Amino acid sequence: MTDAARLERRIHELAQIGRTDDPAREIYATAVSRLGLSAEEQRARDLVTSWCAPHGATARRDPAANLYLRFPGADPHAPVVLVGSHLDSVPMGGRFDGALGVCCAVEAVVSLVESGARFARPVEVVGWADEEGARFGYGLFGSAAAFGRLRVDPERVRDKGGTSIAEALRALGESGDLAGAMRDPKGIRAYLELHIEQGPRLERAGAPLGVVSDIVGIFHGLVMVRGEQNHAGATVMGERHDALVAASHMIIALERIASSVPDAVATVGEITVKPGAKNVIPGECTFSLDIRAPKQESIDLVLERFKAEANEIFRKSLREWGLRPLQSVAVTPLDEDLRDLLWKSAMSVGMNAPTLVSGAGHDAQNPSLAGVPTGMIFVRSTGGSHTPTEFAATADAALGAKALEIAIRELATA
Amino acid sequence: MTDAARLERRIHELAQIGRTDDPAREIYATAVSRLGLSAEEQRARDLVTSWCAPHGATARRDPAANLYLRFPGADPHAPVVLVGSHLDSVPMGGRFDGALGVCCAVEAVVSLVESGARFARPVEVVGWADEEGARFGYGLFGSAAAFGRLRVDPERVRDKGGTSIAEALRALGESGDLAGAMRDPKGIRAYLELHIEQGPRLERAGAPLGVVSDIVGIFHGLVMVRGEQNHAGATVMGERHDALVAASHMIIALERIASSVPDAVATVGEITVKPGAKNVIPGECTFSLDIRAPKQESIDLVLERFKAEANEIFRKSLREWGLRPLQSVAVTPLDEDLRDLLWKSAMSVGMNAPTLVSGAGHDAQNPSLAGVPTGMIFVRSTGGSHTPTEFAATADAALGAKALEIAIRELATA
Repeated sequence: MTDAARLERRIHELAQIGRTDDPAREIYATAVSRLGLSAEEQRARDLVTSWCAPHGATARRDPAANLYLRFPGADPHAPVVLVGSHLDSVPMGGRFDGALGVCCAVEAVVSLVESGARFARPVEVVGWADEEGARFGYGLFGSAAAFGRLRVDPERVRDKGGTSIAEALRALGESGDLAGAMRDPKGIRAYLELHIEQGPRLERAGAPLGVVSDIVGIFHGLVMVRGEQNHAGATVMGERHDALVAASHMIIALERIASSVPDAVATVGEITVKPGAKNVIPGECTFSLDIRAPKQESIDLVLERFKAEANEIFRKSLREWGLRPLQSVAVTPLDEDLRDLLWKSAMSVGMNAPTLVSGAGHDAQNPSLAGVPTGMIFVRSTGGSHTPTEFAATADAALGAKALEIAIRELATA
Repeated sequence: MTDAARLERRIHELAQIGRTDDPAREIYATAVSRLGLSAEEQRARDLVTSWCAPHGATARRDPAANLYLRFPGADPHAPVVLVGSHLDSVPMGGRFDGALGVCCAVEAVVSLVESGARFARPVEVVGWADEEGARFGYGLFGSAAAFGRLRVDPERVRDKGGTSIAEALRALGESGDLAGAMRDPKGIRAYLELHIEQGPRLERAGAPLGVVSDIVGIFHGLVMVRGEQNHAGATVMGERHDALVAASHMIIALERIASSVPDAVATVGEITVKPGAKNVIPGECTFSLDIRAPKQESIDLVLERFKAEANEIFRKSLREWGLRPLQSVAVTPLDEDLRDLLWKSAMSVGMNAPTLVSGAGHDAQNPSLAGVPTGMIFVRSTGGSHTPTEFAATADAALGAKALEIAIRELATA
């Protein structure tokens, strides 16, 4: 039976790995910086392994640093039930994003084992590596590697310190040969993921649980603005080509455009200027672009309008700007049968779980786009997400784990 | 006699120290990154010393890392003629800002010595340390220390790597006790500085040389904007408190306000966001503020209007912003007699030098505000300044050195 106290203890225990509370800021919750492919993420894998091994699970780490904990089933060759989430966080993130899904998966499967359930097929708990992409700029890394959807060369993509993905993997003891991380989609009966909602809809609806119908598509790009580097004192206002002022106009235009397209969102989360001295007019400004919507047409519309307005901003100045697309994730509809199963499982714990579109990207996209039947359950979260204030109550998390347990029982023991 | 070829060779030689041409950018001129209080600045002092020592100069470095090269005069106790500029550059700056003033001072004094001039009083060439303040955020450092105008604690001000000014000085072999850098203003007959104009006025006027009447006042500050860190996908546009979007509105407002106040300029040269991940709405944004004008009232006006508009931007969002003043430099009128002398010296080399207000801050402010008669001469420069493209022709530089030579002869041999 789901043990809420044990679940809460484990969420807390996992949050100690990469804990980076900033005493200078008024943060009343645990801040976590557990970046993908870091030593901290590795320690998180070891901790989760220590929870499952006593219950008969065998641990395996693949070349992409994904962790699989396999609980045996009567037919070892039958397609497995895969359930989990990711173990990394953004810098100064919270305790629940990703971690809650792994903790609830462990709780659900271990509860089943403890209750004497007999699995007809193997059940695997997975901890995906580097979902956030905070370090290397490439999100959903581990699940992309597992389902043949990796679109980067791990030898060439580097973090700010110059370390490549392949070097980071080798530092963790992996071979760096990611072909070995591939899984056959046919070998997976279903993939289930529990995750905090990362938005306010469940909170507003007064619902602890939700079922995901679709995951938004995402466009990630990098914008570079070229202006003219010059002296901050001796260059009169009328003769400046300030890259940061131009970028500011573009950032405001992007916000206005995204606000005008229903269900679309757009964010500039990173910005740097060169040379970056207080008495020098910026000659160059680079910023990130993150555009999401539940329809591809909406993403394209925001991008087109943004390009048009940016061209207009630069038409007068005769300076340049450029956009480099980095990563596009397709809009992902999830499996209808699993939607029904998860809704019924939630009903079994007394909750009428509303159906939601996920505004955030999730590892679930990769198995789903590779043809694996995929379902997602959201747990109500307050205080935002990707921030130390994100918060899921233990009572809600335990309901989620219980619903997951019911769904896994249905899929694995039948 | 001024040796233009030697002057050109030395400008080139000095530019090799800290040379950091970026092959990825289309730069056709030498890029120099010779930051204040760095090992590179130290090597520049050694090089300049090697130019002067063969001509009878004795070198002295003070505890603020300023370099003095003293050429003896008949009365060793008479107030000295001090002439020079600074030896540091901004990151990815050019060959001429600061360096030209030191090279021309050396050329002028050495030419006088070579021509058999007998100094009645000592003549000192000075290479000020850390004028740009690019590393520690505090400009005019060396000259401020020499004239009792330092307003920072060198043990507490640190660079991005955590090194304090005092530690940087100790790494260069200095004691770190800046009291020993103080000079008695009464012991200085006059301070002369030659500098590139850092603006387009001389170029437009077709004049190689200009004489400075006043130096603008400067306000430096740091703005911090607090928004709400949140998930880039799951937070709808209407519910965001994006610190970077708010900062963008402020940057555009600042540009508009400065453009509306005659002779004022304002620049945001540095910006950072936290947490700084592409899929996280910025919860915090910090940027630098640089406001300059030849009248204090104009600086105050820009600042007041900026504060009012910023308050308006934040009135609706219920979020916070703050401004921390870092450094204020008063508007500085230069010495009228020296203005006349420099104008006449320029006329002696055939040039009618226009009178200009300096939009940039200069080391000359510190002796002037301490009561030392101070004069400045500008050399025409094209291609901006604080950039690798800044450029002063050797012919113009040689005219400047010659005018300087004439002025020094007048001041030191009388």
